[in-house]
Amino acid sequence: MHPYTKHPDDAVSAWGEEKLIRAIRGWLGNVSPRAPFGIGDDCAVLAPSQGRQLITVDPVIYGRHFDDDVSPRDVAAKLLKRNLSDIAAMGGRPVAAVLALTLDARVSRVWLEHFYRGLAVTARRYHVAIIGGDLAQADGVLAASLTLLGESTGPRVLTRTGARAGDWIYVTGRLGCSRPGGHHFRFTPRLAEGRWLARRAGVRAMMDVSDGLAKDLHALTPPGCHPALDPARLPCRRGADTRAALTDGEDYELVFALARRTDRAALTAAWRRAFPRTPLTCIGAFARGTKTPEGAFDLSKYHGYEHLR
Amino acid sequence: MHPYTKHPDDAVSAWGEEKLIRAIRGWLGNVSPRAPFGIGDDCAVLAPSQGRQLITVDPVIYGRHFDDDVSPRDVAAKLLKRNLSDIAAMGGRPVAAVLALTLDARVSRVWLEHFYRGLAVTARRYHVAIIGGDLAQADGVLAASLTLLGESTGPRVLTRTGARAGDWIYVTGRLGCSRPGGHHFRFTPRLAEGRWLARRAGVRAMMDVSDGLAKDLHALTPPGCHPALDPARLPCRRGADTRAALTDGEDYELVFALARRTDRAALTAAWRRAFPRTPLTCIGAFARGTKTPEGAFDLSKYHGYEHLR
Repeated sequence: MHPYTKHPDDAVSAWGEEKLIRAIRGWLGNVSPRAPFGIGDDCAVLAPSQGRQLITVDPVIYGRHFDDDVSPRDVAAKLLKRNLSDIAAMGGRPVAAVLALTLDARVSRVWLEHFYRGLAVTARRYHVAIIGGDLAQADGVLAASLTLLGESTGPRVLTRTGARAGDWIYVTGRLGCSRPGGHHFRFTPRLAEGRWLARRAGVRAMMDVSDGLAKDLHALTPPGCHPALDPARLPCRRGADTRAALTDGEDYELVFALARRTDRAALTAAWRRAFPRTPLTCIGAFARGTKTPEGAFDLSKYHGYEHLR
Repeated sequence: MHPYTKHPDDAVSAWGEEKLIRAIRGWLGNVSPRAPFGIGDDCAVLAPSQGRQLITVDPVIYGRHFDDDVSPRDVAAKLLKRNLSDIAAMGGRPVAAVLALTLDARVSRVWLEHFYRGLAVTARRYHVAIIGGDLAQADGVLAASLTLLGESTGPRVLTRTGARAGDWIYVTGRLGCSRPGGHHFRFTPRLAEGRWLARRAGVRAMMDVSDGLAKDLHALTPPGCHPALDPARLPCRRGADTRAALTDGEDYELVFALARRTDRAALTAAWRRAFPRTPLTCIGAFARGTKTPEGAFDLSKYHGYEHLR
């Protein structure tokens, strides 16, 4: 859906800020608590956190992350789910979000209504309160930046740091060809899986795969090591080859390091009971040495999505 | 300073995302804790909050909130201070911030370095940790959206709700002509004043003045009442007349409702001891009736800054 309208009466500028904010509160419905716990005061107020707090921020920008072919509901769902995937990667649970919207005065109210209603549906599904935000005007821009707050659900927050030489590398779901099949809009963030993994002692480090495994895996690799992958084991999405699985990005799956001595059969069996429909695949291990030995599969020949290039 | 460069070697695109993030961590220095408590993991991790949490988000956009005449340091300082003013308005203290930056690939690294160094100086001054963010590319855009987390410092968070008929209306500092004199970049957010006021039982409701008192005061006005102001008492900044004081906006002062029976002389005396350099002015009271009586000063003839118009 094209976000701009040629009819001034249908544009957000015909309403102005105050009327627009009232409309937004209506579109969000019960996912937007009353002020000061939601929209309408200088700050939103949240109860003291139970555990450690998690904060992440990600945007969607017209012309960059979405175009006229995408419904505004899908845009909003993706915006929230991209951020949820980051909370999942730490093993946390989401709590609340604020949304900063930058928009051209010609953006249509219909587009905006579908966007906020889509946000409300996704927020309700994942128990996220939309507690505040900001509206700003800028010519030729339609961008939404969502800051998501979460908290840890157990004694441990999983980070990208902690993998050691010899650790197995596991990935959830399937990789590659996220865009052609619409996975990048339809994916389910791995929140339950992330929390489950954070409670397993053998899981040492974790992150989500968003820019492609070839790029993202660097952040998980212990110093003095390299990821020794078996390309035949890569769980490829339908239509994806090795290159696609490693470089396409937007998979929103979890990749984690498992301590070498873990009882892998027990882990796999427990995983299958907990998540019977989600594949869990060991794709290799972290090996000592920063260079791939001759003859082995060389991950450095693949590049994930590099921003600002 | 113009943010774009014509020399590809000086542009952010010459670095790419990873190198840029490393540079940003360097520019931020010690206001950016190490991951996972700062930049570098899927989420930033914060210790459990002590009191109730406060969240606010505000942007600065090139062409809208700043232009080539403004130094990038001032842009960054204003971005953080706009948000700090919202925390001040609730009587809270700031804790940490995340920054979502949307930028054209032609933005110069020099501009960006000054921006982040300016952010670091202001963050250090107000004890705010910069714990994470996002970089996204979009043609022709330079916008920064900052989400600030704070917490309450006492048993009470002051909101916009709670004023009653008869309550006095007080404002800190001076109003109007914020832009000509550079106040909108140089202002000091009223954090200490906000915390002090939140501990006074007679203060019933508070907010900051950002869009002009004529507009903002509506949000503080109790149902069935109107603000009865004495225009002669308005604390005008040098060069400002009544209209400027009521409508210019960007004052970043506090306006609050004080219970009618409060010992005002004692409050004023205590204020002068605590904040000898900051004026505190009673500008009127909330009177019953939604319309201004004939002959009285009519605030509805003045309009503050209306966004998206």
